[in-house]
Amino acid sequence: VVSDPTHQDPIPPTIEWRQGRVRLIDQRALPGELRFVECASVDDLCDAISTMAVRGAPALGAAGAFGVALAARTLSDDANVRAAARRLGGARPTAINLTWGVDRALEAWERGGADAALAEAERIAAADVAGNRAIGEHGAGLVPQSARVLTHCNAGSLATVGYGTALGVVRAAHEAGKRPRAWVGETRPVLQGARLTAWELDRLGIPVTLIADAMAGSLMASGDVDVVVVGADRIAANGDVANKIGTYPLAVLAREHGVPFVVAAPTSTIDLDTPTGSAIPVEERPPDEVAVVAGERIAPTGVAAANRAFDVTPARLVTAIVTERGVLRPPYEDALRTAST
Amino acid sequence: VVSDPTHQDPIPPTIEWRQGRVRLIDQRALPGELRFVECASVDDLCDAISTMAVRGAPALGAAGAFGVALAARTLSDDANVRAAARRLGGARPTAINLTWGVDRALEAWERGGADAALAEAERIAAADVAGNRAIGEHGAGLVPQSARVLTHCNAGSLATVGYGTALGVVRAAHEAGKRPRAWVGETRPVLQGARLTAWELDRLGIPVTLIADAMAGSLMASGDVDVVVVGADRIAANGDVANKIGTYPLAVLAREHGVPFVVAAPTSTIDLDTPTGSAIPVEERPPDEVAVVAGERIAPTGVAAANRAFDVTPARLVTAIVTERGVLRPPYEDALRTAST
Repeated sequence: VVSDPTHQDPIPPTIEWRQGRVRLIDQRALPGELRFVECASVDDLCDAISTMAVRGAPALGAAGAFGVALAARTLSDDANVRAAARRLGGARPTAINLTWGVDRALEAWERGGADAALAEAERIAAADVAGNRAIGEHGAGLVPQSARVLTHCNAGSLATVGYGTALGVVRAAHEAGKRPRAWVGETRPVLQGARLTAWELDRLGIPVTLIADAMAGSLMASGDVDVVVVGADRIAANGDVANKIGTYPLAVLAREHGVPFVVAAPTSTIDLDTPTGSAIPVEERPPDEVAVVAGERIAPTGVAAANRAFDVTPARLVTAIVTERGVLRPPYEDALRTAST
Repeated sequence: VVSDPTHQDPIPPTIEWRQGRVRLIDQRALPGELRFVECASVDDLCDAISTMAVRGAPALGAAGAFGVALAARTLSDDANVRAAARRLGGARPTAINLTWGVDRALEAWERGGADAALAEAERIAAADVAGNRAIGEHGAGLVPQSARVLTHCNAGSLATVGYGTALGVVRAAHEAGKRPRAWVGETRPVLQGARLTAWELDRLGIPVTLIADAMAGSLMASGDVDVVVVGADRIAANGDVANKIGTYPLAVLAREHGVPFVVAAPTSTIDLDTPTGSAIPVEERPPDEVAVVAGERIAPTGVAAANRAFDVTPARLVTAIVTERGVLRPPYEDALRTAST
């Protein structure tokens, strides 16, 4: 699926169709082990999505589309295919790309059956990688020579089909000889920064230093961050950005310190039907993701934990939104409408 | 050592002198187990301090003083006692209270020998608990009825000899019938919020909800925080506050959302010899505190991690500083000088 034939990508595709199954990198096992999950049914895939074996808004878009292809192949009744599509689309609520991918493959299936659904999913997957390379090329211009880039969570190859969005920007800057270095917030509670982003950057030969999320303020105050680059799970029509919990504090701190705050995301992340960030549903995940780390309970038994998976950064704190169609600047309303249609 | 004879404190003293030894709650074992470390030598105590069996600025003040008493009892040569005092004072660099406690006990020893050093340490310990109760009484006025209080790290009984500073404020509000509820940031990397603060509040019957540190921005944006109350490791002459890493982002977010940001600390935390926060030494702790959680490496082997233990909040973001002598308001320079002399 990764389309560049001139070199071996050090990171395999996050998701691909193999012999009638959806094969995923099992992101729960990283960085300790690079292993794969083979989903033979929609139930398998819904489970992989809700347990975050696969995660990241663009990867979920492809997962939704491949899931419909799987449903079309494995389920006999049309009503069952549509029900499976609804289940897939509801497996996680915040990333708009999931329902976008489901809807696109479902429309193809309505028109042309199972083969058309699979072909659409393959198109989405290939377009994702190509789009991410374009995001990287557009975004690299926002990364100064030898920049110290702060990122959060994982908006890398593993959050997409390949290449990455926010990390695609860092990677393109690296490939252009700009020698960027990355600070990566570990991203509690699920630690996607520590487990996934650090793993990717390490494989790509980009210098990376892990930090506790709460250290970002100190780094900005000491002048050690040149630009913040993050991904997005949904961008509202006015430019408000839902992304992994902890993104919003970085945007507030970046503004406080005059550091550019850049969002990199494909246009499939833009949701013109959601007027502002306050209308974006924010997933609450299980409390034990916070209270239990590596199998060990870190808080007294019985103590409550809250676990909002995302927060919303208002458009006024966003310096630029990088899409595969170019770099958008405020005010975002018209720019987003033009880019996503 | 906890001085109120009218009821049994649900949390034992953090540090006390018992039969020629310094007995500490072993904070590394909480919340799983309430166990104690008995330090028979200055080396034992230095080890307990540097491994954070005992931590928290006011507790370190008492530990430093009891350490000098231990040195005076166990070491034969005056030069050895002075060398031990220097070792104790250097065991951790940021909390000014540690050298303050060491210096006070050492002066007592110079004047009156081992018994005078121990008497001075006992006075410091008793004064700490009484001072914290006074901090609580002064600070409770800043906590509205049914307030949702956000705190960070542990500035509770365990960070002091007893009762706590920031948690002392919450506790006093609770005892006054105000029914506060607490949000507690887990406080990566060492998780003092999850392990210690949640444990204390739970024992005290104060409702507590654990969060990942990065969720604080979302909580403030949704209007779910009425006041932030934190402790301090050192307060510079101009009111800049060094405290656990992650405090500064909370102060910036609190300002952004019009939420009062309150620091609670004894006057021994004020360092008039440090003009501003930029002169406060910030300890860098071992990278594996970040990269290894509960014995499991969360990042790929070989990936670097940075681990600043503290950050500095500028005075302009601090709404009030609560000391045992009363509530200080900006501008802080004169107020701090008056309070600490």
